[in-house]
Amino acid sequence: MTSTLPAQSEPVLHWDDFREGEVREFGSMVVKQEDIVRFAAEFDPQPFHLDEAAGRASMYGGLIASGWHTAAMAMRMMCDAYLKRAVSLGSPGVESLKWLLPVRPGDTLHVRMTVLESRPLKSKPGVGLIKSRQEVLNQRGEVVMEMQAFGMFGRR
Amino acid sequence: MTSTLPAQSEPVLHWDDFREGEVREFGSMVVKQEDIVRFAAEFDPQPFHLDEAAGRASMYGGLIASGWHTAAMAMRMMCDAYLKRAVSLGSPGVESLKWLLPVRPGDTLHVRMTVLESRPLKSKPGVGLIKSRQEVLNQRGEVVMEMQAFGMFGRR
Repeated sequence: MTSTLPAQSEPVLHWDDFREGEVREFGSMVVKQEDIVRFAAEFDPQPFHLDEAAGRASMYGGLIASGWHTAAMAMRMMCDAYLKRAVSLGSPGVESLKWLLPVRPGDTLHVRMTVLESRPLKSKPGVGLIKSRQEVLNQRGEVVMEMQAFGMFGRR
Repeated sequence: MTSTLPAQSEPVLHWDDFREGEVREFGSMVVKQEDIVRFAAEFDPQPFHLDEAAGRASMYGGLIASGWHTAAMAMRMMCDAYLKRAVSLGSPGVESLKWLLPVRPGDTLHVRMTVLESRPLKSKPGVGLIKSRQEVLNQRGEVVMEMQAFGMFGRR
């Protein structure tokens, strides 16, 4: 698992370093119109994700990002904030994923993570599971997306 | 909502056209190594998504696609199969999302959709909600990802 260790000298995060109830806020990502359209053209080519006029004609009142794009941006912020310097072993999945408000061009997103549960994985010695709530907020402090996600980490 | 209508003359799908218990299989997408790495570099830069050697050194035994990439590929197949010709009004979220097996370069993915529930949205007249199971399968028929997702559609 040494391949998951960072080159820099920051402390490496293990499963043991996440505490139930702990809250971390991190990230700052400006959502650009061209990125919304590029993601949608490849993965979610629905009119309200591709075209401003189509977005205005829809119930969303303007161009909005694909929910999968918002989830991917949240993942990038999670990587930069802690996964890249953690003994991260991937994820078995997500328990719930809610798209609560539209994400629009020019929005600035960040993430609030709350550690909900922490337990050793019985099936894999040396591996622990973290269940976290990951809320994505915009520049007005509104929660635009919320998910409860699992992550596996190496133990010390 | 006319912006969501397709240009071609295929029948337009409304909420009324999805029947509980109905199963559809669709899509065929070859997962290229360069696409795995490109997605990961932008959204999920963990070593086992970026580099074959790092993947071999990990518990996954080789380079694997980000789970968010697999979800995005599934979304593209759902768009091509039915969302682009439906009165699709977006999604409030996903009830569960499980990454069951690694997705590797050269895999060919398709989707099996099962309609689990169908009900009118009380809060929005003219709109119906569909809950579906979306299974992503590889060329060996193994389910690599499963999600239970909600979709909103215009009613006839």
